[in-house]
Amino acid sequence: MAQARDSAGRPRVVIIGGGFGGLEAAKALAREPVEITLIDRENHHCFQPLLYQVATAALTPSDIAWPIRGILGPQKNVLVLMTEVVGIDSGARIVRTAAGRDVGYDFLIVATGATHAYFGHDDWARWAPGLKGIDDATAIRRRILMAFERAELETEAAKRAAFTTFVIVGGGPTGVEMAGAIAEVAQHALPPDFRNVDPARARILLIEAGPRILPTMPERLSAYAKTTLQRMGVEVRTGVAVTGADERGVLLGDERIETGATIWAAGVKASAAAEWLHVPHDRAGRVQVEQDLSVPGHPELFIVGDAAAVFDRAGKPVPGIAPAAKQMGRYAAAVITARLRGTEIGPFAYHHQGDLATIGRKAAIVKLGRLTLTGFVGWLFWSVVHIYFLIGVRSRIAVAFNWLWDYVTFRRRSRLILRQNP
Amino acid sequence: MAQARDSAGRPRVVIIGGGFGGLEAAKALAREPVEITLIDRENHHCFQPLLYQVATAALTPSDIAWPIRGILGPQKNVLVLMTEVVGIDSGARIVRTAAGRDVGYDFLIVATGATHAYFGHDDWARWAPGLKGIDDATAIRRRILMAFERAELETEAAKRAAFTTFVIVGGGPTGVEMAGAIAEVAQHALPPDFRNVDPARARILLIEAGPRILPTMPERLSAYAKTTLQRMGVEVRTGVAVTGADERGVLLGDERIETGATIWAAGVKASAAAEWLHVPHDRAGRVQVEQDLSVPGHPELFIVGDAAAVFDRAGKPVPGIAPAAKQMGRYAAAVITARLRGTEIGPFAYHHQGDLATIGRKAAIVKLGRLTLTGFVGWLFWSVVHIYFLIGVRSRIAVAFNWLWDYVTFRRRSRLILRQNP
Repeated sequence: MAQARDSAGRPRVVIIGGGFGGLEAAKALAREPVEITLIDRENHHCFQPLLYQVATAALTPSDIAWPIRGILGPQKNVLVLMTEVVGIDSGARIVRTAAGRDVGYDFLIVATGATHAYFGHDDWARWAPGLKGIDDATAIRRRILMAFERAELETEAAKRAAFTTFVIVGGGPTGVEMAGAIAEVAQHALPPDFRNVDPARARILLIEAGPRILPTMPERLSAYAKTTLQRMGVEVRTGVAVTGADERGVLLGDERIETGATIWAAGVKASAAAEWLHVPHDRAGRVQVEQDLSVPGHPELFIVGDAAAVFDRAGKPVPGIAPAAKQMGRYAAAVITARLRGTEIGPFAYHHQGDLATIGRKAAIVKLGRLTLTGFVGWLFWSVVHIYFLIGVRSRIAVAFNWLWDYVTFRRRSRLILRQNP
Repeated sequence: MAQARDSAGRPRVVIIGGGFGGLEAAKALAREPVEITLIDRENHHCFQPLLYQVATAALTPSDIAWPIRGILGPQKNVLVLMTEVVGIDSGARIVRTAAGRDVGYDFLIVATGATHAYFGHDDWARWAPGLKGIDDATAIRRRILMAFERAELETEAAKRAAFTTFVIVGGGPTGVEMAGAIAEVAQHALPPDFRNVDPARARILLIEAGPRILPTMPERLSAYAKTTLQRMGVEVRTGVAVTGADERGVLLGDERIETGATIWAAGVKASAAAEWLHVPHDRAGRVQVEQDLSVPGHPELFIVGDAAAVFDRAGKPVPGIAPAAKQMGRYAAAVITARLRGTEIGPFAYHHQGDLATIGRKAAIVKLGRLTLTGFVGWLFWSVVHIYFLIGVRSRIAVAFNWLWDYVTFRRRSRLILRQNP
């Protein structure tokens, strides 16, 4: 195919998105003779698996987010642009940006991830925010902490009870982690600091529409998670769907629950990639890709991570987790490398490394093939794995230090309520 | 005097503001038989002397800000309320809050501090933000980092130059520290991460209307600061007043300077205390208080810190710095303690401990009585003093670790651009 090339004659690879998939693709092309442009609307890569810890004041945003250009700074074949993509002209091979700058490509990797899905009730987003980025995490932190502040100011007992009620919608890993973390903050970190309200008596509900929490894990581990959460005082309700959300709380059918904060962990939908490209997608907005992750009819255009609908060899959908996105990012880079060398590689094959979820201090679930760890051992393993995957020695030291400190003191480091930026 | 008392019969002390003055007053009353209510519109106490380090990405908000109720949690005679004060009825001895809750008092300490002053040009605030709180610092950090992002996206050299021009208005300690810190970030932390723009060639101007920067320090130290800044590439302009500020930059008389960010460090005015109380105040809005820091005609009502116009024995105004606010807070608490015991103490006497200002890595100015330190020794002394005054062992370890790390690596930890909270 005829390829426009950069001034040095090298093929231009454009990557949209600096999440796990996009970053991994960029790194995998570090030593290739290509000119990479990575575009993201944020200036930072965020370690999403620990977002719930920022939302619950255990970690601070800069512990788990790093400037993308800082990560890729030493890689001289990458240009990082912070701007929003507004469209893709896959015929002319041009990415259009909100900054007005068009970026031409020979290969394009779309790694734009997923966002919250409210199943046709987008108006709920305002009252039940989801957790996908650092700004979501600080906003949820603000709501949770403000709820206790309002309760402390309140003179009526009924209103105090409402302010200290928290509903987490969705019993997947994020919902389980949020419910456990809010319970810990309420029971351990906050009580010494309040006078009119007892944070330890906060009511925390985890609502799951399906028959059990952690539905992708074996039943035994779902049951373990439920028991552990219940022992921490969390009410786990399965088979119950949220039918409404407003400023006062949520509706579960006929039952109204007034809350201090509602957190949405119920569903995700892919970002706008399918719309930009006018290509077929599934109900969650994920683009149906070929076996080499390219878009049908566009061998130079790849979709990786949560924006792609991909299946493993058994025909099961590849889950929307960090390791899957990384594998896809690396694979797309390998396809490009092979093509440039005039060779070929086989279709994408997903390797499931395992499932991890924490429930709280001393309790986590780890499933790696046949190995299953729960309780304190699971928690230790979970902690080490997550520290290992952080970027940079400084973050690893900082997070390890903070976890150790919290573990010993039961305090929370980052209980700041920040206002809106002007 | 007839005093309404709390249910336990103890006098009620209300403190407005959890800054240096208010916090120190609350702590000084820890063992007294009083019922304290501390009201602040933020949930955190902020270590203002290091705000410029958050604004320039060296420290993260939670390194220098702590929840007020966390600090006072162990002090059982304090209730902390997070709400805005909307008025004071000094006749009925009631503080009115935005939460609708009225708080009665027997003694009131107003420690509401100061805010930026634009000398009749409040419309400049939008284009030239000042640095008084954590949210100001993250907003300024966002502007500075966004300026470099825009420059990297820009294809016209003239626009790139404009985006990488920074004007700091005001040559006091804050202005000097901001100018030095921006120069360091631009020259050391950012260059490896950019391709189209060279951050090291950023233009940084420090504008001072008076004849010299650091006007309250001896002339020799002003000259030292100027030379050091100039060696770091900062243009220091004295005797020049800003005559306009808009979205494109600033006006200095006939000269227009287009900027990527403008930072206001030129003036402060006291908070609304004088308005609430309908009492005489000076041009900067500071309440003229008696020798015991009480408001004339109201021996039960004290103003401490930047909200008060206080003079030392030589008749010089007490400066608006943290040690002065702390001394006043402690003094007001001591007056209350003495009154409750039926005794009296002498008038407030300010003890000036010294002046400190950093200019950058390896350069600071320390003046303690006859002792003057500059250069690396000054910088070391400055670092140790500031770490000592942070709250809590964890913050001290975190800040010391971060400074050491930055010192060795020239990196900046916290280069996150955060969006608006919804």
